[in-house]
Amino acid sequence: MRQRHKPWADDYLKEKNHIVLENASVHKGEWRKVFNNDNPIHVEIGSGKGQFITGMAKQYPDVNFIGIEVAKSIIVSTVQKVDEEALDNVCLLNEDANNLLAIFAENEIEQIYLNFSDPWPKNRHEKRRLTYKSFLEQYQNILPDQGQIVLKTDNRGLFEYSLVSFSEYGMKLVEVNLDLHGIEDETNVKTEYEEKFSSKGHVIYRCKVKF
Amino acid sequence: MRQRHKPWADDYLKEKNHIVLENASVHKGEWRKVFNNDNPIHVEIGSGKGQFITGMAKQYPDVNFIGIEVAKSIIVSTVQKVDEEALDNVCLLNEDANNLLAIFAENEIEQIYLNFSDPWPKNRHEKRRLTYKSFLEQYQNILPDQGQIVLKTDNRGLFEYSLVSFSEYGMKLVEVNLDLHGIEDETNVKTEYEEKFSSKGHVIYRCKVKF
Repeated sequence: MRQRHKPWADDYLKEKNHIVLENASVHKGEWRKVFNNDNPIHVEIGSGKGQFITGMAKQYPDVNFIGIEVAKSIIVSTVQKVDEEALDNVCLLNEDANNLLAIFAENEIEQIYLNFSDPWPKNRHEKRRLTYKSFLEQYQNILPDQGQIVLKTDNRGLFEYSLVSFSEYGMKLVEVNLDLHGIEDETNVKTEYEEKFSSKGHVIYRCKVKF
Repeated sequence: MRQRHKPWADDYLKEKNHIVLENASVHKGEWRKVFNNDNPIHVEIGSGKGQFITGMAKQYPDVNFIGIEVAKSIIVSTVQKVDEEALDNVCLLNEDANNLLAIFAENEIEQIYLNFSDPWPKNRHEKRRLTYKSFLEQYQNILPDQGQIVLKTDNRGLFEYSLVSFSEYGMKLVEVNLDLHGIEDETNVKTEYEEKFSSKGHVIYRCKVKF
């Protein structure tokens, strides 16, 4: 995602540290305490500007959502949305996706969303793709047996790669949709990218997989 | 495939019974003898009018091809092609796909092609789809451990269904291609359907899977 330099981002994130939690690993194994309830926890890795996670939080008030986004200048947009709408079932982490095992305990998460992740199309960057086996290992650790990963993208290469990577890892496909917007689905919460690329005529792919 | 009534088909097939073998099950376990060599055997289930299987036979002279097609009025077109081109690495069976275990011994086949199979879109017809689990069981029996199934279709529903069905059965995806004609691939032998629907702008999907 294109990042504009936002010199005020650091101060803003500190001010809103009830939404963007610092020292995420302190809460490992105790995320239900952070939300002060026993609702399931869903995590979006690469939550971007937050249209998806805030939309989901409104649609599913009995689910807790954690958005992970490494770029400060982007996560601030989500913080603003969460703040304005006073959503109490969302918190955000300004963290790298490689740190999941430091942040979450085994089986602590019910579902993971990967939305329009960077496709890293060059072969030599395969390890950076969020569906590379090293990431799948992390997801397997923090998800329970029936926990699902839901992936959406308009990038054909990433989708093809991910299906094979899931399969090689021994995961099971629960659902594959090769034209998500082919039939109107009001329960589908769109990301910013999804709206933009779908309106340009791109096909949107989605799959749901479990270990 | 639309079938025209061809009253001469019966006689023609009898006349060409060195190409369309009768009593296929007689050759179970001994297909290499039929071809009189030890080359690998590939089977196309639903070989239609035969553009694919005859094209493959010319492209891969060191592979033996068996086309299975239940419709007499359609298989005659393939017989004509094989006859005209004097292809000695193709034979045809006017059989139902449900009879595979009567026709082939364990591990006798190296590869199976499912090209533009009938999608049977209604849920109540799921069992007729050539990627339903009862067919996968048959394929597993006649393919060796590393043997592959190669599926091509322009039918989104069938492709989505098949990916999930393969996965549920514990098969591994080796390759997924969500726009086969997106890049020109001269090794891809096209079926009649494939040419027709691709020229109409349909996306062609392909996957390769193994047990």
